[in-house]
Formats: sequence, C-alpha cells, structure tokens
Amino acid sequence: MTALEQPGILTPSQAREVFRTGEVPATTSGWCRGHVQANLLAVPRDLAFDALLFALRNPGPCPLLEVTDPGDPHVREIATADLRTDLPAYRVYERGRLVAEVADATEYWRDDLVALLIGCSFTFETALATAGVPLRHVEQGRNVPMYVTSRRCRPAGRLAGPLVVSMRPVPAGLVATATEVTAGHPLAHGAPVHAGDPAELGIASLDRPDFGEAVEFADGDVPMFWACGVTPQAVVMASEVPFVITHSPGRMLITDRSDENLAQ
Amino acid sequence: MTALEQPGILTPSQAREVFRTGEVPATTSGWCRGHVQANLLAVPRDLAFDALLFALRNPGPCPLLEVTDPGDPHVREIATADLRTDLPAYRVYERGRLVAEVADATEYWRDDLVALLIGCSFTFETALATAGVPLRHVEQGRNVPMYVTSRRCRPAGRLAGPLVVSMRPVPAGLVATATEVTAGHPLAHGAPVHAGDPAELGIASLDRPDFGEAVEFADGDVPMFWACGVTPQAVVMASEVPFVITHSPGRMLITDRSDENLAQ
Repeated sequence: MTALEQPGILTPSQAREVFRTGEVPATTSGWCRGHVQANLLAVPRDLAFDALLFALRNPGPCPLLEVTDPGDPHVREIATADLRTDLPAYRVYERGRLVAEVADATEYWRDDLVALLIGCSFTFETALATAGVPLRHVEQGRNVPMYVTSRRCRPAGRLAGPLVVSMRPVPAGLVATATEVTAGHPLAHGAPVHAGDPAELGIASLDRPDFGEAVEFADGDVPMFWACGVTPQAVVMASEVPFVITHSPGRMLITDRSDENLAQ
Repeated sequence: MTALEQPGILTPSQAREVFRTGEVPATTSGWCRGHVQANLLAVPRDLAFDALLFALRNPGPCPLLEVTDPGDPHVREIATADLRTDLPAYRVYERGRLVAEVADATEYWRDDLVALLIGCSFTFETALATAGVPLRHVEQGRNVPMYVTSRRCRPAGRLAGPLVVSMRPVPAGLVATATEVTAGHPLAHGAPVHAGDPAELGIASLDRPDFGEAVEFADGDVPMFWACGVTPQAVVMASEVPFVITHSPGRMLITDRSDENLAQ
C-alpha cells in the first residue's frame, strides 16, 4: 500500500506536494489526520473589507485562520504554501456564476487578490473519531454533503446570502458527544447549528446536497449540521460578486497546524 | 451622595447619557461595574481593510467587539449608542498628529468612517477586584498609566507601529492570581504580556506614562503589563495616517454587555 492509499498518514507538506503535481482527490477529509484544514476565499482588494467584515460578523461559518496581504499568493502562518497550486482544486466565480473548476489556479490568479483562510469542520473529525463517533462519509469514501439553508448570514457591504451547512449522520446516542467534542473547536465551526429535522433549516431533501455527495444513514443515525466554510461561495453567488477564487468544496488547504492548537 | 459620585452603580445607558450631556471624567475605570468597556478607532473607508487586518493580526491589543458599516456612526450589538457623542472624550489625529481632544466628535465625524470597537482591560477589573487584587489607579482616583513599548505589532498595509500596554501594580503574592483571572478574558486583552522589569518592554520610567497618569506602588507591588487598546493610536501616529478619530485614552465606550458574556 502506498502512502497515497493511506492519505491519513501523509504530512501536510507531502499532501500539498501531491496536490501541486495535479492529483485531485474527491475530498481531503481523512487526509493528514490531526492537522487543521482550511477553506479558501480569494477576493479582489476592493472587496476585501466587505469580506473581512462578513467573516467577523459570521464567525460560525467563517472563523478566520489567516488573511494574506493584497497581491501575496502565499500563506505564511498556518502553513508555508502557495495558494495558487497547493490545494487540490479551485472554483472561479465571475458575477456570481461558477465559470471554471481547475486543479491549478495560477492562470486565474490576480495581483490584487486578498485570500481569507477559513476554518473547516474536517479539522474536528479526528476528535470525533477518537471519541467514538463514526464518520459515515469517510466510511463510504465520499465528500461530505453540504446544503444551502434558509438561514441568512449577517450581511456586510455587498455580501449577503444564506448559511451553508455540512451534514454528518450520527448515532442518536452519540449526538451529545458529537456536540461536546465539536464545541471545543470554535475555529473549525464549533458546535452544530442543528440536529434533527432538515426542514428546520429549509433543507428539502438530504439526498440532494448543493455541494459534495449524499451519504447513507445507518439505522438510528440522526442528521447533525455544522456551519460550513462553503458559505462564502453561496454568498458570492447570491451577491453576484464580480470575481472570486475559492477552493473546490471538500478539497481544502491542508495546513501545518495541529488540531490541538486550535481546540479550546 | 448622587449617582454620579458612585459611577460604579450607574447603568451603561445612564453613563452614556451623562457623557452625552458633556461630563468628562478622568477615566471610565470603575464606572458601571460588571460591564464591558471598549476602545474606539474610527478610520476612513479606504483605510478600513488595513485597520481590520491589523486588528486580526494583533488580537492581543486589538480584540474586535464590533465593526460598524461605513458611514454608520452607531453601534448596534454591544450597545445602542451614537459613537459621536456617547463616549466621554475623543481624540482627532491628522497625518499622525493629535489635532484635537473634544467631548463631542460630531463636528469631526465624516460619512466615510468605519468604527472599530476594541476590547478594554477595564472590563476585567471587576473580576480582579472580586479575586482580591487591589486596583491602585482606582484607589488613587487616577487614569490607568499606559506606555509605548519597544515591541512591534504585526503590520498590516499602511499600519505599523509599537505595542502599547497598560500597567497595574499588583502585590507579588497575587501576580499568579491576576494572570489567571485576566487570561479568562481574551476579548479584554487576556493574560498580561509581562510582569516585572519595565526595561524588558523598553519602558524607561514608570513615572512618565505616554498616556494616562502615573500611579503609586505599595510595598511589595510588582508592575504587571497588559496589551492595551490605545495601541492603534500609537500605530496611527507612527504610520502618519491621514485621519482618524479615537476615544481619549482611559475614557471608553461603556457597553451594555456584561463582563461574564465575554469571559471564556
């Protein structure tokens, strides 16, 4: 078995090297266990204040891990990485529409972009597994399902739109455990926003996620929903923002930070 | 004894009314005990991204409590207050120089200003007092002394400059207690940055604070230093920023939030 067949044991720099050379996995969930993963939102300089303000006003979906200087495509704190190449895949939005999904963002990158790196719920999955909570999407080899909800984020400037959540089926007897474990990771979205009836969040059907893939429930599983770092992508679409680059949902920047350093 | 002679028992809205009608106390330390106080930094829209990024990169001196929409002189979350009138006093800086200190900022306010409200160490003074830590500046009826240090903040865009600290003399046997108590208030600057020799922070003499007033030490007191929300004012001066309005050091916005809600 090669290291790539066991992505959980790769180091973050090995994983980024794999992505830099063009490998595009279905998801980075389960990769480099014990390390923080991050969502990407890169916006033109003239939208950067609105984006920062939006993140500050919506710390549930948008906990900020690092923000780059305008024009600098590198992160330097959470990892030493080139944001144009070191994620598995990217989405490019123009006027709110998805215009490209690519493994390398170099040709789309602009020298006025500011990148926001936002916490990801994959970060707390190691802690969930350690606490005995099964991860159905990992068991099934799928990307986590994500849903646009009927909840509105707090707007900021030109940015307004819905909350997006990730969903994990959790055995009913472990809902309290999963809540407690994830509450300890506020920079990875923290405690769930809801457990139970998806209709409460305006989700019509769990079988048709807006991002990622549907997962199978085991008998007795309850759907649990966490605020998701794909929220800015739904907001970008709703707000018809002229131009942004994001990660491809479920395919994150893997950072050098250990989970423990972000837990509280 | 009137309520004004016992400012600790005023409600925050009563205190703001007092300030709105022109009263300017030496300090708001000790006012409205149990309520969060906040520093003000109001910057033109074109500096707002740099200011937000500076705060995010320097959460010790600049924990963000609320950020207003451009042009809106009101806070709506931490209090319902008019930032132009509801603080005791203001400073106006042009090209890094202090050009006015006024009790009412209305005539200086601009419609492109964005206001950052930043946590204040006065917030944790109730907790210190409850833990038996004496507050020398309160006992002596003085504004807390603040010092520009030799430590540099992390820069952001056009903003770069030194860390400012507030200093409180603490009996040696209570230094550990004071550290522990304040560490629980990260949105009020949290644990001290230093205790002991002021020279470690590049402070030549405790008798000559850069802001506020010198305080007397009791026998056995050790100087303890906390990151201070006046830091942006020192940074504004060092960076020669064209225009900002701040609170007058030690004369804060008193919010409606209780201390407990900000403690962690």
